[in-house]
Amino acid sequence: MLRDDVKNTIQRYSMIKSGDTVIAAVSGGADSVALLHVLYSLQGELSFSLAACHVNHNLRGAESDGDEMFVRRMCRMMDIPLYVANIKVNDFRQKHDSLEECARRLRYGFFEDIGKNKLIATAHTASDNCETILINMVRGTALSGICGIPAKRDNIIRPLLYSTREDVERYCRENELDFVTDSTNLSDDYTRNKIRHKIVPLLREMNPALYGAMSRLSDAASLDDSYLDGVAAQLMQKAGCGDGKYDVNQLCDADECILRRIVTMLFKQNDIPVSMSAVDSCVKIIRNKQGKINPCQFKFVQIRKKKLFVVTDYEKYRRNQCDGFLKSV
Amino acid sequence: MLRDDVKNTIQRYSMIKSGDTVIAAVSGGADSVALLHVLYSLQGELSFSLAACHVNHNLRGAESDGDEMFVRRMCRMMDIPLYVANIKVNDFRQKHDSLEECARRLRYGFFEDIGKNKLIATAHTASDNCETILINMVRGTALSGICGIPAKRDNIIRPLLYSTREDVERYCRENELDFVTDSTNLSDDYTRNKIRHKIVPLLREMNPALYGAMSRLSDAASLDDSYLDGVAAQLMQKAGCGDGKYDVNQLCDADECILRRIVTMLFKQNDIPVSMSAVDSCVKIIRNKQGKINPCQFKFVQIRKKKLFVVTDYEKYRRNQCDGFLKSV
Repeated sequence: MLRDDVKNTIQRYSMIKSGDTVIAAVSGGADSVALLHVLYSLQGELSFSLAACHVNHNLRGAESDGDEMFVRRMCRMMDIPLYVANIKVNDFRQKHDSLEECARRLRYGFFEDIGKNKLIATAHTASDNCETILINMVRGTALSGICGIPAKRDNIIRPLLYSTREDVERYCRENELDFVTDSTNLSDDYTRNKIRHKIVPLLREMNPALYGAMSRLSDAASLDDSYLDGVAAQLMQKAGCGDGKYDVNQLCDADECILRRIVTMLFKQNDIPVSMSAVDSCVKIIRNKQGKINPCQFKFVQIRKKKLFVVTDYEKYRRNQCDGFLKSV
Repeated sequence: MLRDDVKNTIQRYSMIKSGDTVIAAVSGGADSVALLHVLYSLQGELSFSLAACHVNHNLRGAESDGDEMFVRRMCRMMDIPLYVANIKVNDFRQKHDSLEECARRLRYGFFEDIGKNKLIATAHTASDNCETILINMVRGTALSGICGIPAKRDNIIRPLLYSTREDVERYCRENELDFVTDSTNLSDDYTRNKIRHKIVPLLREMNPALYGAMSRLSDAASLDDSYLDGVAAQLMQKAGCGDGKYDVNQLCDADECILRRIVTMLFKQNDIPVSMSAVDSCVKIIRNKQGKINPCQFKFVQIRKKKLFVVTDYEKYRRNQCDGFLKSV
């Protein structure tokens, strides 16, 4: 049944074309072992080549190396080419970076390196998706957070996204597959563990079909969100003056939800952290066709001569960097 | 502080204009007693007239009558005109109607009767809104369910929607206000009680500012949802042929999220129950510009000569009604 579900998902979302090369990201946990096994059994039928990759994050000493050995052995036995990245996550950790966030960043960097002209398949399930949506909700989000984990984005595909963790576990039992404890379940991820082990079981008592309901919500929200992003991008392009400036006369009458999206895009393009209050302030100056806000250190969003643009106070920025350097000497 | 919050909410959402008459819906519980008290203290400043209404649902015998007496006494003491509806909810209950749903329908019918050219203020709080969104999610919803409780719809306003149940309780303590156990908390509402007493406390351990986060999500979702509904309504009108039929050539290339909304609107206009699978089937025949579906007994949605319309099989419907009548004799 998992095999059929995965095949349906691949076809419904046009994830794989005949002749593609798919690299399955395999941690060695039940989800990714099942993913590799299902893709292995589908490669003839759907005419794609299969490879695997593994990231050793070096976060759990000998256990991490054991996982790597496990994946190496499995791929050798199945005669599947394997890419391995050995990353000391702690060496790359930046300020304000959670361990999970840093590991994720490095992992997707590796996927980008090896995934040129290839597809990367990750083992995210409907259970992960449900948890992600709830986590985003609890932490605070707009529609984008309700979209959850995308089934397909650039060259990343997620064939297990409409199957649950139970489906995966049953598949592993039925096919007598060995697996290790999933090394991506970093123990410091307090919120996800609480959602997974406390909240979700209670919600499933109320609706045993919770995962399906959340998948449908996430699908509907994704359609809505990408439509609205499209409308916003179009208007932003139309208002663009070509020099990083935007004609406020074209923006000031836009619907609130479109204008909020345009401001969010402007912030992201300029590495300004997106907070609801900063977005609201920026929407306000656009509606007024004048004003200036300071959404983060060294950066200003301002309107002059009916044009909206972002300014960085490089002088102050350099002074601060220099101060930082002097202090660290 | 509750008074300031309520005043801000009223002004931000332009809920009340000078000269308006506001009827507060008062069950006698803490939320509605606080609402009445705050509105009473704001009526001079915001220049509106205040009245109250109470619905005795007759669901808890003497206790229901006690609540009614409590509200009557309070309004007499405050010299506030009071409308009372005495409804035997159980007499009005229809097939497939939950007790809560039926009470709600009757209550809002009463609001409509007394609310002509007046505003009805209900005492829904940010806590209710958060619970409602979670309930909708668990039961299965699209974006519309994430919008939660609207701050304003037609002549219904909800001045407490950005204040929490704790804010209300503090206000009642500080102002030494008496209240009864809220009679709208029908005991058969299993899901809401579970969400309120088990889920929300766990989520608030993860984020103490949960209610604020959910209010912002609900605001953002409402803006998105009403924008998308507007786009859909516009296209539907454009495709309308004036005889309840729609030109499929105008609809078939619409974005998925817009087309789903159009189908949902068509279903609602024709009293067809909205389910995701029926909506999906209908979207499919529109994309194919041909076909016929049977989303519920006696009703068909079909496309003929490139026009989409709903047909009711009246012959079969009458026969069935008649059978039902004969059986009930």
